[in-house]
Amino acid sequence: MLKSWSKPKRPDEVELETRLKAEREKLERNQIKVKEGKVPVFIVFEGWGAAGKGSVTGRIIKNMDPRFFKVESVKEPTEEELRKPFLYRYFIRIPEAGRFTFLDSSWMKEVVTDKIKGELSQKAYRSEIDSVKRFERTLADNGYLMLKFFLHIDEKEQKRRLNGLKKDKNTSWRVSEKDMYQNKHYDKYLEVFNRYIDDTNQSNAPWYLIDAIDKKWAELQILEILNQGIETALTNRGNAVPILQNVFPLMPVPKLSDIPLDKALSDEEYNAELDKCQKKLRKLHNELYLKKIPVIIAYEGWDAAGKGGNIKRIAGALDARGYEVNPIASPEPHEKARHFLWRFWVRLPKTGHIAIFDRTWYGRVMVERLEGFCSENDWKRAYNEINEFEKELADWGAIIIKFWVQIDKETQLERFTLRQNTPEKQWKITDEDWRNREKWDLYENAVNEMLQKTNTEYAPWYVLESNDKKYARIKALKTVIKAIEERL
Amino acid sequence: MLKSWSKPKRPDEVELETRLKAEREKLERNQIKVKEGKVPVFIVFEGWGAAGKGSVTGRIIKNMDPRFFKVESVKEPTEEELRKPFLYRYFIRIPEAGRFTFLDSSWMKEVVTDKIKGELSQKAYRSEIDSVKRFERTLADNGYLMLKFFLHIDEKEQKRRLNGLKKDKNTSWRVSEKDMYQNKHYDKYLEVFNRYIDDTNQSNAPWYLIDAIDKKWAELQILEILNQGIETALTNRGNAVPILQNVFPLMPVPKLSDIPLDKALSDEEYNAELDKCQKKLRKLHNELYLKKIPVIIAYEGWDAAGKGGNIKRIAGALDARGYEVNPIASPEPHEKARHFLWRFWVRLPKTGHIAIFDRTWYGRVMVERLEGFCSENDWKRAYNEINEFEKELADWGAIIIKFWVQIDKETQLERFTLRQNTPEKQWKITDEDWRNREKWDLYENAVNEMLQKTNTEYAPWYVLESNDKKYARIKALKTVIKAIEERL
Repeated sequence: MLKSWSKPKRPDEVELETRLKAEREKLERNQIKVKEGKVPVFIVFEGWGAAGKGSVTGRIIKNMDPRFFKVESVKEPTEEELRKPFLYRYFIRIPEAGRFTFLDSSWMKEVVTDKIKGELSQKAYRSEIDSVKRFERTLADNGYLMLKFFLHIDEKEQKRRLNGLKKDKNTSWRVSEKDMYQNKHYDKYLEVFNRYIDDTNQSNAPWYLIDAIDKKWAELQILEILNQGIETALTNRGNAVPILQNVFPLMPVPKLSDIPLDKALSDEEYNAELDKCQKKLRKLHNELYLKKIPVIIAYEGWDAAGKGGNIKRIAGALDARGYEVNPIASPEPHEKARHFLWRFWVRLPKTGHIAIFDRTWYGRVMVERLEGFCSENDWKRAYNEINEFEKELADWGAIIIKFWVQIDKETQLERFTLRQNTPEKQWKITDEDWRNREKWDLYENAVNEMLQKTNTEYAPWYVLESNDKKYARIKALKTVIKAIEERL
Repeated sequence: MLKSWSKPKRPDEVELETRLKAEREKLERNQIKVKEGKVPVFIVFEGWGAAGKGSVTGRIIKNMDPRFFKVESVKEPTEEELRKPFLYRYFIRIPEAGRFTFLDSSWMKEVVTDKIKGELSQKAYRSEIDSVKRFERTLADNGYLMLKFFLHIDEKEQKRRLNGLKKDKNTSWRVSEKDMYQNKHYDKYLEVFNRYIDDTNQSNAPWYLIDAIDKKWAELQILEILNQGIETALTNRGNAVPILQNVFPLMPVPKLSDIPLDKALSDEEYNAELDKCQKKLRKLHNELYLKKIPVIIAYEGWDAAGKGGNIKRIAGALDARGYEVNPIASPEPHEKARHFLWRFWVRLPKTGHIAIFDRTWYGRVMVERLEGFCSENDWKRAYNEINEFEKELADWGAIIIKFWVQIDKETQLERFTLRQNTPEKQWKITDEDWRNREKWDLYENAVNEMLQKTNTEYAPWYVLESNDKKYARIKALKTVIKAIEERL
């Protein structure tokens, strides 16, 4: 695309000024529409060194109310960021509904830099490209306006600008070794930029090449695209998005009602096994830490199924500095204002750590589905979005273990009644639990669909038969141990 | 994708048979749902020579009612097909709503073969990839279920099969030189296949790699994906599809109401110019023919604006063997059952020919929009689909000229009244014309939006001021001449 690009014709000065004025005024009006329409706008500036990313961003935001936008500059990853999935530091920066985020350099820079340095194999490059495509598409599917600009100047112009900056004492600091290196190897960069842009040019997140030969002209090109994009995003607002064909090989799962729940352990068996398993897991945790392998353990299950006690037995085996338990309640306003997976991205562990989620992103296809907290289109789309999210974690190297803690309806009633009648347990039972219980069949149906549609090879489900909590705890420990051992 | 693929695990014989039986029965039911839900299903089989495309197709259709599907084998392009746009022979084969088309080799084969032969520059390859992506996406956007299967076997297995076939007198004819060549250059093909699959793997038309090591197992993999796909397509049926951001640089156009209509020619001027222009155009037509450049002239305009007479003056200058006029009425049932552009694809000229369209694909965003013949989402999506369609024609090398024949409301009334009062002209005026006239303002609004959103550099609009028909005819001739001369 970059190599075969034919520059748009710059209009004469009079026309330029007229159009620029019109577009600036339009943006002033559009920013309000964006706010009222609750559209999140994510704008990415990429381009050659000295192409003027900074100054053009400055020109665009001059037309805007500073309360509506944020400008972020993504620098070298920190120690912490290097221990997270590749897209982590970008996903956590997505804007809230109704707000603009301008990103000065993005995930493109990261991929391209690694590619130029020769640090990415062809396979790793392709895997990152796939991640990027899924990331941008899922944002678009969730109502984000994604705009990607590449500011283009040719080799000679870049050299002229860099030399100009270097000569002046006040600006010479702005020219880095890297800029000079890029100019010296312009053709090599052109090749890699061109390939990346072709590889990530998607219909719902297309690339826009900007002729950056002069600032006003660059501003006009960007404003026209930005205003067009906002109008398109507003048209699409609230509309359903097609459900995608599944592309992740799924493994068959039995229906909940076909799973026998009579498994049990005696106290002696339990105590002996518990001790053995916890010791083993403690040792493995150490190895994981040394090998910097992250582990994600996701718990879902019926109310009173025994999730809490089960998690305790896993956590009890772990070094407190190497794990965290994330209890997931209903999303807060600032979380609801973003992609539904955002609040899980920000809670991801570092490599070598274990993150346990007490309830998870699967809330989307259970409670949010059944209580109408999201649209039908939202939860139907979510199976694939979840499979993609977990693929991201798997590609990062995470061991993913998903537990469904299963009990039957009678057992739940017994435990609810016990809680109700035991003063120190009463805090554990609420009216909501009783209301949910009335919807047992609807939930069972939703859970069956969820298990069937998200039981991927890289993030399998395990059902914990928890009529006997002891049995379920030992099974959980053994499952975690086995998964870790297989990896090590 | 192909090179980094990890094969799915083949289930044991018992499980295989169980799942196969279930999927076959599901397909039997799903074919009825497809028919009733009016979903068009377009299935493409690609893969290595001797991977078993034919036999697997045979296995799939055994579960289906022969009235519901068509199997097409796309061979070497004919002389005629070579003189059409690259995608022509595939676009004309898209299925009708409610029916399946199985394609044995597709556009992939064409691109890949040219690439292997070294007949495609990097730029031409990229252009074809973009065409393919747009083609597959627009089908998906219009409710098509697009399924692309690649049947994979490794080099050794291919060799074994080819040798086996060759040894047997009854099957040796099935092994071509090309198959042997492919096996000998397996790695080279793998590289090109892999690249193509990566380049065209889109979320709304993903690739499915099939382990083709044995027939039953291949059938199962395909059936599972096919059934899943049908269920997804049925879920999406009737839902709106997001409007895409515009990616085609547009040129500014004046509003209709700002265009002065007082231009006129005297009879002498007209006759002299007509003669001169027609002679010139006749000469140019000859050159076009020799250079095999196709020309598309699209006419839209108000009722009684003088389209017919205008077209006559263009056609009058042309050799009858080198042009065709396509009058476009409302679509017939078999046309309505396909993508709205299908009826224009089948009417495309050959290279070197001129096709004049008397009314066009722009009906989608005028009459179909205003009369509710398509959904709001349909016509809003159509601006981009039309820009893409014309891009396809431009990439093919066509000169595209679009005329809007403009008159004012008073002139239309005069001409309507004259027609009504002149017996030999009465056939030209209908009640519908009067009804449309009542919606003048709505139409004007729609036309302005259309001009603004589809005035691309590669397919520009020209307004013909036709209050004076003579002026408009000469302007049309001169515009056509200028566009051709610029190309030659």
